[in-house]
Amino acid sequence: MSREVLIVEAAALDAFAAEAFRRAGVDEADAAYCARCLVEADLRGVESHGILRLPIYVRRLRGGAVNARPRPKTVSGAGALEVMDGDAGIGYVVGRAAMLRAVELAGEHGIAAVGVTNSSHFGPAGIYARLAVEHDMIGVAMSNVDAKVVAPGGRLPITGNNPLAVAVPSFGEFPFALDMSLSAASGGKLLLAAKKGETIPLDWATDAEGRPTGDPRVAFEGFYQPLGGIKGLGLSFVLDILCGLVTGGPFGRQLESMYSSAAPTRTGHMMIAIDVLRIVPRELMKGRMAAFFADIKASPMRDPSADMRVPGERAYSKEMQRRADGIPLAPGVLDELAELGRELGLTATLAPKAGPAHTSG
Amino acid sequence: MSREVLIVEAAALDAFAAEAFRRAGVDEADAAYCARCLVEADLRGVESHGILRLPIYVRRLRGGAVNARPRPKTVSGAGALEVMDGDAGIGYVVGRAAMLRAVELAGEHGIAAVGVTNSSHFGPAGIYARLAVEHDMIGVAMSNVDAKVVAPGGRLPITGNNPLAVAVPSFGEFPFALDMSLSAASGGKLLLAAKKGETIPLDWATDAEGRPTGDPRVAFEGFYQPLGGIKGLGLSFVLDILCGLVTGGPFGRQLESMYSSAAPTRTGHMMIAIDVLRIVPRELMKGRMAAFFADIKASPMRDPSADMRVPGERAYSKEMQRRADGIPLAPGVLDELAELGRELGLTATLAPKAGPAHTSG
Repeated sequence: MSREVLIVEAAALDAFAAEAFRRAGVDEADAAYCARCLVEADLRGVESHGILRLPIYVRRLRGGAVNARPRPKTVSGAGALEVMDGDAGIGYVVGRAAMLRAVELAGEHGIAAVGVTNSSHFGPAGIYARLAVEHDMIGVAMSNVDAKVVAPGGRLPITGNNPLAVAVPSFGEFPFALDMSLSAASGGKLLLAAKKGETIPLDWATDAEGRPTGDPRVAFEGFYQPLGGIKGLGLSFVLDILCGLVTGGPFGRQLESMYSSAAPTRTGHMMIAIDVLRIVPRELMKGRMAAFFADIKASPMRDPSADMRVPGERAYSKEMQRRADGIPLAPGVLDELAELGRELGLTATLAPKAGPAHTSG
Repeated sequence: MSREVLIVEAAALDAFAAEAFRRAGVDEADAAYCARCLVEADLRGVESHGILRLPIYVRRLRGGAVNARPRPKTVSGAGALEVMDGDAGIGYVVGRAAMLRAVELAGEHGIAAVGVTNSSHFGPAGIYARLAVEHDMIGVAMSNVDAKVVAPGGRLPITGNNPLAVAVPSFGEFPFALDMSLSAASGGKLLLAAKKGETIPLDWATDAEGRPTGDPRVAFEGFYQPLGGIKGLGLSFVLDILCGLVTGGPFGRQLESMYSSAAPTRTGHMMIAIDVLRIVPRELMKGRMAAFFADIKASPMRDPSADMRVPGERAYSKEMQRRADGIPLAPGVLDELAELGRELGLTATLAPKAGPAHTSG
């Protein structure tokens, strides 16, 4: 197995993933879209939702747990509030349909919410929030996921590290784009600490009995803690309610992981679009967002060489840089993709752009 | 100054506060409403937003920083998205008008959002979220406040410990009711730790230079840290955008504290109502909320004698108990209220219900 970080061109990853999705039964346009979503995550530095997820998606599509050609349709609601059945489809396609419907309804009503039931893993919530921004609207996107978060004092998980994204048009270089989960830390951060042999803060994770742990290796056998204790727990409950309980899907501990079950996850989402230009003229909005960004960036830091960033700025810069320089893949990922390619008999191949950037691990 | 916790009947506090508001120029119905809001906070255990705020409200009403007889009116928007000008009115009255308007519009459209500009401190955000629940809707209420929260690595505050509340009808004994601010800890928690001579977690507060501190007394001279680091900071920015930036009011560091300025604060709010019964029949919603509550309460705890609570449950129990037994007031509060009563020449007086409950401090 390769132990080096290798650089691959975004376009090569894109073609590879698109062919894999097609081979798994997804039609051409949707396959291209799903591939773009994965590669965009890698471009933006959200590797945990990038190309490394391709094998599990393909496996679930081929196994029938995810419907490759879903026909999402509205099943209840009226006016600016609807629920869509995702037809057990791939979350990227269902989530896009739901946010586009929310944008359409917000165009009529000013604000709209479209809940989704019977979907599947939809990747980074930020995709859908930023989709609303492409239509000059504020976007809010949420999903529920299987329960991995232990309440303060609890012994077992009670809610998911549910993702929440909010994006706001700036009419400038990049939008405000917050994209987070409601756990204190992500699996990626635990992995990094484990690799470096560092301890983690005691409010990030627990052991398998729910006891807070500072050892990231113990945390891998355990669970997450909620963002900021009971406040983040409460917010995660809100997402359980909006994505699952009111849409008619499973909620809380009823959800199963796509990694542990071969059945559909029946994931729920909630997409909200706000047609902000109804209440603020575009030029005024642009000016205020520029002032807001400038104010954040001018905020004095304790370390004068440190840089305060607007939510979404780091991901935007990374995307610009990686579009030019290529995407670094963690050791092993390229091998796994090559194996997937052989298994599917893909014509696309992945060759590193250049020699190893630096060794790792 | 009295050093004892004294118990006062809710009705007595209510009458006292209502007369004080009337004397400060508020009309009879609004005065009764504002008084009820303050006493309800004490009943629910949110003492930081209870009767102890009466003196500052009265001072600002009499000083003209807050308009005692506001005429809130819609100034922009259409359909299900509007902005209301609060006419520099007392936040309780303006906030109620905005949420009632959101409920009205959600009745037409299914979901609605009413932003508010030119308002003032509106107390606990939960009031407005629960107001939507009285109309069988999901309520979301937010406000911006003056900047008191330092970004990770920052030296000075950049956003407020902005409050966010979400309430969901359960059609049972009490609604789901989350009511929080986006700082890691409240001033009340710092005060408690200082009184007990305890240290505080390093991610709660900073000194006056933005350096994290474990000493609550140092923290009083400093600032708050955001809930869960950059995630809570990002959420607080979202509230700055929704409450201030898009409504036309001040945002971020532009806001001033009602304690440090004699001018109107021009506070902004955002009220969202969701007519959930459009997508879930009432009995189904009731059954699912009961199942959700039961699932949360059945979550195993590490300490088997510990109790897992649903958001809003503790406040509800406390309210039931305090309505029966009276409200304990912290040492000094009764003296301050008595002084306010003399200053305003109130006929209402506050006598402790019984002898001291227990000594404190």
